[in-house]
Amino acid sequence: MVRAIEWVDGESGGIQIIDQTRLPREEVFLLLQDVDSLIDAIVTLAVRGAPALGVAGGLGVVLAMRQGAREGWSEEHLAAQITRVRNARPTAVNLAWGADRVNAVRPDGDAAALQAALTILAEDEAANRELSRIGADWILARTGRDKVRVVTHCNTGALATAAWGTAYGIIRELHERGQIELVYVDETRPLLQGARLTSWELTQDGIPHVLEVDGAASSTILRGLVDVAIIGADRITEDGDTANKVGSVALALAAQRAGIPFVVAAPWSTVDLDTATGSEIEIEERAAAEVTLFGERPVAPEGVRVFNPAFDVTPHDIISAVVTERGIVEPERGQNMRVLDRM
Amino acid sequence: MVRAIEWVDGESGGIQIIDQTRLPREEVFLLLQDVDSLIDAIVTLAVRGAPALGVAGGLGVVLAMRQGAREGWSEEHLAAQITRVRNARPTAVNLAWGADRVNAVRPDGDAAALQAALTILAEDEAANRELSRIGADWILARTGRDKVRVVTHCNTGALATAAWGTAYGIIRELHERGQIELVYVDETRPLLQGARLTSWELTQDGIPHVLEVDGAASSTILRGLVDVAIIGADRITEDGDTANKVGSVALALAAQRAGIPFVVAAPWSTVDLDTATGSEIEIEERAAAEVTLFGERPVAPEGVRVFNPAFDVTPHDIISAVVTERGIVEPERGQNMRVLDRM
Repeated sequence: MVRAIEWVDGESGGIQIIDQTRLPREEVFLLLQDVDSLIDAIVTLAVRGAPALGVAGGLGVVLAMRQGAREGWSEEHLAAQITRVRNARPTAVNLAWGADRVNAVRPDGDAAALQAALTILAEDEAANRELSRIGADWILARTGRDKVRVVTHCNTGALATAAWGTAYGIIRELHERGQIELVYVDETRPLLQGARLTSWELTQDGIPHVLEVDGAASSTILRGLVDVAIIGADRITEDGDTANKVGSVALALAAQRAGIPFVVAAPWSTVDLDTATGSEIEIEERAAAEVTLFGERPVAPEGVRVFNPAFDVTPHDIISAVVTERGIVEPERGQNMRVLDRM
Repeated sequence: MVRAIEWVDGESGGIQIIDQTRLPREEVFLLLQDVDSLIDAIVTLAVRGAPALGVAGGLGVVLAMRQGAREGWSEEHLAAQITRVRNARPTAVNLAWGADRVNAVRPDGDAAALQAALTILAEDEAANRELSRIGADWILARTGRDKVRVVTHCNTGALATAAWGTAYGIIRELHERGQIELVYVDETRPLLQGARLTSWELTQDGIPHVLEVDGAASSTILRGLVDVAIIGADRITEDGDTANKVGSVALALAAQRAGIPFVVAAPWSTVDLDTATGSEIEIEERAAAEVTLFGERPVAPEGVRVFNPAFDVTPHDIISAVVTERGIVEPERGQNMRVLDRM
């Protein structure tokens, strides 16, 4: 299992990531040693995935502190640089959450900050393994099948998290139990995280899968080819509304009609109880070139206007289960995320 | 307005098409003079769109007759070649319909066959203009808006038909009346007919539009950004179930939830009363390379399995209106296509 993001300590250390823009053709690791490089990696999606961005936010504070010490930044400048990291992408709550959590212990010094950031990383892996067990049990009970056929969207594997994965983590857990029949992977336009990343991870893990265009997912579900749809999340609001990669809500609508469960898998850190409902979530719009260019090749008339929202919101009433390491909420039955707000 | 398919008569004549695989970057016309070239053009989608395939089927019979006369084919060989044309793509009913219609007058000779094929072409344009008027009236009445915001999928314009267009024809009609506010165009993976063809036609016609990935369509609808979804059809069964480019049913599911009309526009020749319901439609599966390669560039791990259905079926109970030149059927209200079977 690949590690998407790690800390390399010492004088010539920094944040090591695998450059996800170059997968599946090349496995290139980058060592990020200053705030600009980190923000560039976040914006270009060299590092991506809500939980991995939580780690990036936390480690980003440490990176800024070290750069500030090297370059003699004022407190004001350091705080501004941390804010830049925190806000590099607007929709994923985890990035800000990770940065805030480490920023809070910054007064205690470099070692305490690093410890806090590494704790985020360790906790994310532990959370993913736990929610995967919980989610696998729920899916097997709900579908009543020995082997399940799954459809998933975008990438939620080791590449999107500190380790193990969320929606992918459940698939991995089911596979380790010998209970995966087949995974349908949406290619996930415009950036093809499904084709490039999820399919690469599934190949590495030896999990049987087929790739399909995003537009095929609804009919794959309606034709009875899958037993469950599982996605990750970038933000889950108090009522269970879920922001995730654009295209996700199509799976939920089809799953509702087909009568199969639609499952959201995410660590508790993705839950944003301060936001009541999905309509309050800011949806990031990204550059036109992601849609109009393929590599260097233009695929649309020159100058065409583009609408490129990175996320959509699935309404809670068509989400069968939100699976976290704290347990399961069933929003379609009217349950609110606060039922798990115990800690 | 471009002509996607025309007949060029005379010794060095044949079927002239614009090569749609090379749009929007190059406008290349091809002259097809034998059955193999025509089948190649159909299979590679150099000529495509259900109504245009009806014309191709009809003209294909004439092409086969002329090639047979040149090369001294037996009746048996000629019939076999016509069958090859007829079956070059399995889902679109129009191709077989056009071939059968001209084949029926083949005993009357070359001139009669050509006349029958050219009649298909003329009738298709007339049907499209008529259904566009009917569809525009219905949409304006149903939405109650002065200017409408539309989402559409794939290409249904002049490039997909003999002329004018079907779903695109309604958009064109609304635009000529000054009643289009904005058109959201799905790019339509894997072959990007929306990005390459519809966006090219809309640019040529000066109709305001934005391009989006297919996965964005559901949330564009759920966010209230459009007033109506309009698609074409490759086959409409007796009960109104509609096979169309994969990804279409996602728009229908979202439109149902959002409470906006979902409209199918097609000439009567697309209606297949001999097929009772969508589950009986054979869904063409196309090559993996359409999904895994972009131009020459691989975008998925080598050897990945692919599921590449070219079409999906939208169930009639979530279709607000099927618009044909004979009038409108409202399948969601339980109307059957036979109500228009008067001729």
